[in-house]
Amino acid sequence: MTVDRILPTDEARDLLELTTELADRELAPKVVEHEQRAEFPREVLRTLGRAGLLGLPYPEEYGGAAQPYEVYLQVLEILAGRWLAVAEAVSVHTLSCYPVAAYGSEEQRKLLPDMIGGELLGAYCLSEPQGGSDAAALTTRAVRDGDGYLVTGTKAWITHAQVADFYNIFCRTGGPGPKGISCLLADRATPGLHPQAAERTMGLRSSPVAQVVFDEARVPADRLIGGDGAGFTIAMSALDSGRLGIAACAVGLAQAALDYAVDYARQREQFGRSIIDFQGLGFTLADLATQISAARALTLSAARLRDAGRPYSIEAAKAKLFATDVAMRVTIDAVQVLGGAGYVADHPVERYLREAKVLQIVEGTNQIQRLVISRALAKG
Amino acid sequence: MTVDRILPTDEARDLLELTTELADRELAPKVVEHEQRAEFPREVLRTLGRAGLLGLPYPEEYGGAAQPYEVYLQVLEILAGRWLAVAEAVSVHTLSCYPVAAYGSEEQRKLLPDMIGGELLGAYCLSEPQGGSDAAALTTRAVRDGDGYLVTGTKAWITHAQVADFYNIFCRTGGPGPKGISCLLADRATPGLHPQAAERTMGLRSSPVAQVVFDEARVPADRLIGGDGAGFTIAMSALDSGRLGIAACAVGLAQAALDYAVDYARQREQFGRSIIDFQGLGFTLADLATQISAARALTLSAARLRDAGRPYSIEAAKAKLFATDVAMRVTIDAVQVLGGAGYVADHPVERYLREAKVLQIVEGTNQIQRLVISRALAKG
Amino acid sequence: MTVDRILPTDEARDLLELTTELADRELAPKVVEHEQRAEFPREVLRTLGRAGLLGLPYPEEYGGAAQPYEVYLQVLEILAGRWLAVAEAVSVHTLSCYPVAAYGSEEQRKLLPDMIGGELLGAYCLSEPQGGSDAAALTTRAVRDGDGYLVTGTKAWITHAQVADFYNIFCRTGGPGPKGISCLLADRATPGLHPQAAERTMGLRSSPVAQVVFDEARVPADRLIGGDGAGFTIAMSALDSGRLGIAACAVGLAQAALDYAVDYARQREQFGRSIIDFQGLGFTLADLATQISAARALTLSAARLRDAGRPYSIEAAKAKLFATDVAMRVTIDAVQVLGGAGYVADHPVERYLREAKVLQIVEGTNQIQRLVISRALAKG
Amino acid sequence: MTVDRILPTDEARDLLELTTELADRELAPKVVEHEQRAEFPREVLRTLGRAGLLGLPYPEEYGGAAQPYEVYLQVLEILAGRWLAVAEAVSVHTLSCYPVAAYGSEEQRKLLPDMIGGELLGAYCLSEPQGGSDAAALTTRAVRDGDGYLVTGTKAWITHAQVADFYNIFCRTGGPGPKGISCLLADRATPGLHPQAAERTMGLRSSPVAQVVFDEARVPADRLIGGDGAGFTIAMSALDSGRLGIAACAVGLAQAALDYAVDYARQREQFGRSIIDFQGLGFTLADLATQISAARALTLSAARLRDAGRPYSIEAAKAKLFATDVAMRVTIDAVQVLGGAGYVADHPVERYLREAKVLQIVEGTNQIQRLVISRALAKG
Repeated sequence: MTVDRILPTDEARDLLELTTELADRELAPKVVEHEQRAEFPREVLRTLGRAGLLGLPYPEEYGGAAQPYEVYLQVLEILAGRWLAVAEAVSVHTLSCYPVAAYGSEEQRKLLPDMIGGELLGAYCLSEPQGGSDAAALTTRAVRDGDGYLVTGTKAWITHAQVADFYNIFCRTGGPGPKGISCLLADRATPGLHPQAAERTMGLRSSPVAQVVFDEARVPADRLIGGDGAGFTIAMSALDSGRLGIAACAVGLAQAALDYAVDYARQREQFGRSIIDFQGLGFTLADLATQISAARALTLSAARLRDAGRPYSIEAAKAKLFATDVAMRVTIDAVQVLGGAGYVADHPVERYLREAKVLQIVEGTNQIQRLVISRALAKG
Repeated sequence: MTVDRILPTDEARDLLELTTELADRELAPKVVEHEQRAEFPREVLRTLGRAGLLGLPYPEEYGGAAQPYEVYLQVLEILAGRWLAVAEAVSVHTLSCYPVAAYGSEEQRKLLPDMIGGELLGAYCLSEPQGGSDAAALTTRAVRDGDGYLVTGTKAWITHAQVADFYNIFCRTGGPGPKGISCLLADRATPGLHPQAAERTMGLRSSPVAQVVFDEARVPADRLIGGDGAGFTIAMSALDSGRLGIAACAVGLAQAALDYAVDYARQREQFGRSIIDFQGLGFTLADLATQISAARALTLSAARLRDAGRPYSIEAAKAKLFATDVAMRVTIDAVQVLGGAGYVADHPVERYLREAKVLQIVEGTNQIQRLVISRALAKG
Repeated sequence: MTVDRILPTDEARDLLELTTELADRELAPKVVEHEQRAEFPREVLRTLGRAGLLGLPYPEEYGGAAQPYEVYLQVLEILAGRWLAVAEAVSVHTLSCYPVAAYGSEEQRKLLPDMIGGELLGAYCLSEPQGGSDAAALTTRAVRDGDGYLVTGTKAWITHAQVADFYNIFCRTGGPGPKGISCLLADRATPGLHPQAAERTMGLRSSPVAQVVFDEARVPADRLIGGDGAGFTIAMSALDSGRLGIAACAVGLAQAALDYAVDYARQREQFGRSIIDFQGLGFTLADLATQISAARALTLSAARLRDAGRPYSIEAAKAKLFATDVAMRVTIDAVQVLGGAGYVADHPVERYLREAKVLQIVEGTNQIQRLVISRALAKG
Repeated sequence: MTVDRILPTDEARDLLELTTELADRELAPKVVEHEQRAEFPREVLRTLGRAGLLGLPYPEEYGGAAQPYEVYLQVLEILAGRWLAVAEAVSVHTLSCYPVAAYGSEEQRKLLPDMIGGELLGAYCLSEPQGGSDAAALTTRAVRDGDGYLVTGTKAWITHAQVADFYNIFCRTGGPGPKGISCLLADRATPGLHPQAAERTMGLRSSPVAQVVFDEARVPADRLIGGDGAGFTIAMSALDSGRLGIAACAVGLAQAALDYAVDYARQREQFGRSIIDFQGLGFTLADLATQISAARALTLSAARLRDAGRPYSIEAAKAKLFATDVAMRVTIDAVQVLGGAGYVADHPVERYLREAKVLQIVEGTNQIQRLVISRALAKG
């Protein structure tokens, strides 16, 4: 199903066409094998970087494309429709560039062109095994030692844990609570930085997540981003953008699942007719299509708030919550449309279902989104 | 809850402010009494007409405001939040101007300023008692007789049946099927045009619907709009716009219900705390807020397609389906938030619930919307 | 749709047949008029009492029928399908007999035959305007004064407030918290007992609820039930039974709505076929039928636990929650099946919808049920 | 969470205790490894057979336990809570014994003791690659040839395809439509019977399904069950029982998922409290628990109809539809309760989710169940 998009510029239209072309040529043919092998497609990320897709929202002076989030998210959506792990990698990488881009010193920003260009891949180390949704309680500690910090602790659920070139580390340099948290930028070669074995996840296997153990890992003091105690502010600010990214990924995944199910239902015959002509199935597909359209509209609406410089935190939480719940529902029903065929790896829909589930969990579980929204309602 | 809207022009922003002011001053204080008495607020409609709110999407040369649907729908939304019957009256009236505005002859369009200005109120006679969702099968017949038509048949569920000044009559001038249908424009004084007693509806009582019986009602031949056999095309084309109008009404109603419930939940205490601070309730409100945001975004997204001259029929169907289902869910839960208090007329939420239900039915039941969407999916 | 019921005894089968016959003959013809007039059908209750339906679960020595709850609830279900207000009256009355039947002294139980026989109608005064779901915090106070109590306070949402012959009053005779609460049994003629004007409810109008104001209402000391401080225990114990009663009412209401919608959908034709033959509608009806069967099975399963003397509090909460949510969903969709016709008083489904809503609120809102269940899960 | 069950006999209680003990000892420790290796646990089935669990509903004269379905299904439920593939194997095997047990000749029934005792494992060959839900259109053909039949065609989604000892083959011996279908019983050693490679399913890997190709497979004529043309009747009659089996499996799986999630939520702390004490999560768990109770009650209610010799086909379809939809919902939310931990193989909930999906598809997709139920409603 071609989505009819109203875009702000011709440049945006060209960008989406380029993305579609790249997605069809570079992503679609490789996804199945990489997922089976649980192998991260580093080369694909480089290709996207060379095409300029790894730093779309950032200023042109740092090698970005200065695209509004409204456009960047539609790029993510298209990528996610072909290979969720790659779209999520782009989203995480873009997020990983955010602390330096938004809070970095002039000196630190010199790294941006290589980050945005995709030469350097980023990881974002916020979650901890015990912390989960409670970021303000994180326990990874950084102790000043001469001209550096010694970081000790364990980060969990880290995308690119094993393949990243740089790591944003949110760690405690001060007392308890949000104000004691700082953000450090570490290189892969940092002594004492130990990526662990990949988690055995239900899906998204070509983008392995893992713990990263920091064992007195030494990070130079000039890699402190935004000053001492700025970590929580940076993390929260990045979170809102990250949520929009996940929402867009969810829309793309859901659309891919629906498209596949619709194609199948057009061709599959039972009782002498295309099964899509049975209202029981047709109405279900209509509901799914409706929810996807709503998820896309909500996500882009939140993005436009961000682009206009308005507060968008609550709308981003709504978009993340809604779009990922839609993706879950759509992928479950997409498998159902195919019946037994949907349950086997010959068709991508069972993969879509396994992938959708993680979206309800990352960048703040959907329970956390509800908490964010309900608190805003309570405040009025 | 103030909704943060990104509007295309400053003029639009002024228009929405004017609407809010009018809604607070002219609508809000009158709704309860009119609903209880089941009395149509003809004067309120005149006031809105004088303020220019009855022909927003039409060209300025006919007295309209040439506003995009994106803006017009937000006006409807605001009105619906204060008094659904009035918003629906505006939507139906705007729809009733559509055949003449879009298909009328130069001569016929001379009526437009009075229609758009609200001096003349319109009714839209499409549905029939047996027809329901199957417009192509309508049986009201118009027989050519000299310089006029004699119309015979019964129309059902007609908004403004008893108070309209003009009536669009969709009737059969030819053979069976869609091509035999024409559209006539009749005055209130037409001999043989008999509005019936109002239906005893569950809600929306201040905007009574009724059957209109045509008993050899004589309509001048020059009141044929768009030529013989153009009726079905006109009706279908108007339907899409009408669906957007209902979607916007649903968003406004749902938002009003949520706002009321949130205010109540902030003030009501149980077990020693504001009940909004209990996650069980807070999460429910968060879900409602999310769905309303999605409904609004989807509705405005469909409107922007219309405004851009793109096909928008399917997206309008999705918006109508989604927004009205959301309004139903939100109003049911809004009553629940108030508990027993929500079940009595001391608070508006029980009215909202009764009103929401009709939105799932009018302008094509939500089953018809699903049919429209699923057929589009089947065609690809 | 005839429900195929497996009943424990032939006596139970006869009882259900009698109930069906009475419901068809005495209830069905009167409901519409009584609802319109908001008039309580005192005579109907007497008729049910004479037929032995007002004290089904109570011992035969007090004039009861010693029926298991499994059977009693199916009687309620059948009544609710014809006239919810009457079924609810039976449920409330049965509940009102409970304190005396279960905790009363020999002397107090002498009242039971007249209560169970329906000569005396009961009211159950637990809720308060501010209290809502927090029964342990009730503020109505009873002060010992000679050989009686002086009761002062206001009770809210009292079924039979204006027509009852006796009132169970839960009031504070001691300190704060659950242990300070006692239960008194007051006659209608009690000086200082003032039923207030009926609430203007959305539905269930023939069984008006109202506040009851106690203004130093004098209740004899020998009307203290179960001893000083036993009130909360009595109330909680009765609540579980009351919840089963509401669950059964919800099942009956939902079944009536489905039956009506199915009949309509069989007869109504659109596009040349019975609309029930369209899968879009047929599948919806199938889902409703499924949920009703599940609600009935769950309710009777909880009843059998009660009948077997097992703990059933949690299962009763589940049944109340599930069955009333089902009734809400079914009645909304039943209106939808009829389309416009469903929205007017010519058909009962709009009434069913209005009635269903109250069931999600009474005997502990469905949020309270979730609280009860989640606490049990937390305890393990 | 211990489920409080009211059982018809002490024997049944003993049986369920035995089952629980076996499930804990023989199933629970092996499931993870077998699932990883996609290895069918033939030995476990033998153990269950020796314990008498493979022919519970069949008469004692054939080695069965003459247990009512109400009891048999609770055995399945308990097994499914430990290892769905094994429970499903028991269900399929029990189904595979059905044609001979219910329609077999005296001679054929001599096989029953070995079948019921588990020495011989059964497969049930009804579905075909193109047929899916339309059993009456099956194309596998059996041609009489001397004292046997030559069977040619392909069966799909066959549980035990590769490990069965006997195969019920539904094939066409006559003209088109249901009356041309017969049922043959083939041994594993049948020449021309070729199980194919296992499907790569999303879950339930230790019970591989595969196609079975029949290439002029020779089945003796005395292996015709129930006479020529009786196949469709047998298949339909068995289907109802099979659906109850899947419903019971779904209940067991859902309960296991809930139990795991509840245990986790009791122990996991965030923001300084057990997460189960947050209402947002607690209410979700309460809803899941409620739905599981409803699914169990509905399933057992349908079973009691079967046990009482009443028509139960529609109630079986409702139970299958409802219970499997509940299992899907519960397992998705159970993963959510664990957050990131739920998405990895360290905990069983991601497996439960993958397993739940197949239950919505087998023994008639849930769309087929809705069709069955809606047709019954249409007939009245």
